[in-house]
Amino acid sequence: IRIADVSAALVDKGNHRHFMAKEIFEQPEVIGHTLSEYVNPLDDTIRNTDLPVDLASVPRITIVACGTAYYAGLVAKYWFERYARVSVEVDIASEFRYRDAALTEGGLAIFISQSGETADTLAALQYCRAQGQKILSVVNVTESSIARASDAILPTFAGPEIGVASTKAFTCQLTTLAVLAIRTGIARGAVDKTDEARLVRTLMEIPRHVAEALASDEHIQTLSADLAKARDVLYLGRGHNYPIALEGALKLKEISYIHAEGYAAGELKHGPIALIDEEVPVVVISPVDELFDKTISNMQEVIARGGRVVLISDKAGIARAGDGLWAEIEVPPVDPLIAPIVNAIPVQLLAYHTAVSKGTDVDQPRNLAKSVTVE
Amino acid sequence: IRIADVSAALVDKGNHRHFMAKEIFEQPEVIGHTLSEYVNPLDDTIRNTDLPVDLASVPRITIVACGTAYYAGLVAKYWFERYARVSVEVDIASEFRYRDAALTEGGLAIFISQSGETADTLAALQYCRAQGQKILSVVNVTESSIARASDAILPTFAGPEIGVASTKAFTCQLTTLAVLAIRTGIARGAVDKTDEARLVRTLMEIPRHVAEALASDEHIQTLSADLAKARDVLYLGRGHNYPIALEGALKLKEISYIHAEGYAAGELKHGPIALIDEEVPVVVISPVDELFDKTISNMQEVIARGGRVVLISDKAGIARAGDGLWAEIEVPPVDPLIAPIVNAIPVQLLAYHTAVSKGTDVDQPRNLAKSVTVE
Repeated sequence: IRIADVSAALVDKGNHRHFMAKEIFEQPEVIGHTLSEYVNPLDDTIRNTDLPVDLASVPRITIVACGTAYYAGLVAKYWFERYARVSVEVDIASEFRYRDAALTEGGLAIFISQSGETADTLAALQYCRAQGQKILSVVNVTESSIARASDAILPTFAGPEIGVASTKAFTCQLTTLAVLAIRTGIARGAVDKTDEARLVRTLMEIPRHVAEALASDEHIQTLSADLAKARDVLYLGRGHNYPIALEGALKLKEISYIHAEGYAAGELKHGPIALIDEEVPVVVISPVDELFDKTISNMQEVIARGGRVVLISDKAGIARAGDGLWAEIEVPPVDPLIAPIVNAIPVQLLAYHTAVSKGTDVDQPRNLAKSVTVE
Repeated sequence: IRIADVSAALVDKGNHRHFMAKEIFEQPEVIGHTLSEYVNPLDDTIRNTDLPVDLASVPRITIVACGTAYYAGLVAKYWFERYARVSVEVDIASEFRYRDAALTEGGLAIFISQSGETADTLAALQYCRAQGQKILSVVNVTESSIARASDAILPTFAGPEIGVASTKAFTCQLTTLAVLAIRTGIARGAVDKTDEARLVRTLMEIPRHVAEALASDEHIQTLSADLAKARDVLYLGRGHNYPIALEGALKLKEISYIHAEGYAAGELKHGPIALIDEEVPVVVISPVDELFDKTISNMQEVIARGGRVVLISDKAGIARAGDGLWAEIEVPPVDPLIAPIVNAIPVQLLAYHTAVSKGTDVDQPRNLAKSVTVE
């Protein structure tokens, strides 16, 4: 037994009613801590990411995790492809560990776990080691089993997370993975010095923009009172906002017990649109970006069928979205690199306030444990 | 305009109340047609799969599709990995086409579409062609846009599918992909002559086992009257049954408008178990195989929390599952190769009878089109 070395300030609820609220509002600070480890603000470079693997020649990256950490991996895939032009496979640990996956010798395998104790993720790690992969873990607890079994770790600096539904650990995982994707792009020649400086400056804006997104707290609280009456909710997004739709749905499921499901917006017409009526609110995550028009077109189909849409977008996106929205939540306009991190905030607040409205036990939802150390 | 060359017998409902029922019951026959194209029963070999690509040296396979065809791709990934030891990425077409995926020169890209006209899938195909991939399509309509844009096609022989919710096209896609996975295994030396003969004989058993699975029709009709009262349903499976859980949930969504969601059984504890109470039936797909005990353990957690479980398993699995099931559906015990095809039958029947019980328009569900030729 090792006594956790955490100060009292980090484990009480502060002025918040629940640990989850405290942890949501801590995000500008803990993302800042994470960034201060991995970027040098004096010369706009990435630092402290030396790994026992040559990122320039890695043939392929495998990312394995469970639950919310798996969704962080899905976002990271978009980043690795975009900024490093490397091919990435992401899988759920409980599937991956039994799949006998064919892995390329010398590949890099990344494992993401807040606790570092997730049983399926640890088993997947051992499979990858046996297959000759280099093992990197992104963990919040550096003394954990997964950390100890890794060739290298990139710790997140989220501090202790008490609420069962992960929030700040997720955005710190994302921040760390964004750094790693850029670092990989540098190693592979896809990101030059100028790009690096620009991307690092963009990363350094995350805490400020997350704080701006948190300013919607009261507005979200008000609309959550209505959302709490729903029995089913869909979340839609494209590209890097698709995993945020999945995460938003998972968060709502976990703490409010509303059956929420995330979908790639383009898949709507291949089935789930049949569910749409005035009783199923649809949360659409779509700030203005290159996929905006496509997602808004899917959203219009939902509205045309009587669906009640909550649009999460920036001011310009809300203005362009047209009539018929049930509600909107404004996020600041940000660079696509950091958009998924900023967009995570409103879906966390939406889940939190909806659960509070319903009177569920937000920090200790039924049937769930903080770390899943069994299969 | 080309007049479809189909006989009247193929486009009326026969003795069935809906095209969907007719198409479900046609599966032994049309899977048989598909097999007769691709396997030679005289010497137990695979035939008619010559492709303009060297399967022995293909570095990687990319599979892209939408909706039900995407789930066929997810099953195929398990087969390609298991029987051919080749690495496979599967993606949703609407995501893939905008993702700027890094593809290995000389890779094989496979597109699956019943109609061959799915707009997102066609756009993804064009992206892959521009990236130097060899293009193979698995289509039910050989005169379609996707077929014409391909280097090679492997047609399915499902005959015209009228019901909007795909059934026989799905199992014929699976049959064709299973053949291709074995063919790839032969090319790569992972499947020898003896294996090939055994696997081909196993494939030839599909029609018989599908017919056995169809014998549960009346039993499923009875229990669907209760399922029709549910507002939310979860489907769970592991390995190749995970995509069947996704497909079962999609089918139920599409035609009964019940909010069903498929989940990898191992992910249950990472969130969705919070939803479980006596009002959310859980369909568990788990015949006896190497993952049986793991899935049954997840199922027991559902039962312990008051969840009503419908177990789809073979006789031995139902006997081993223990007490507390709400209902069971028996499937024949079959080789793992063909299990996902056989297990697709009860989830189709469950969706069909539940929709009929609810009185929805089974063949023309609200908001859905048969081919999605727009984004």
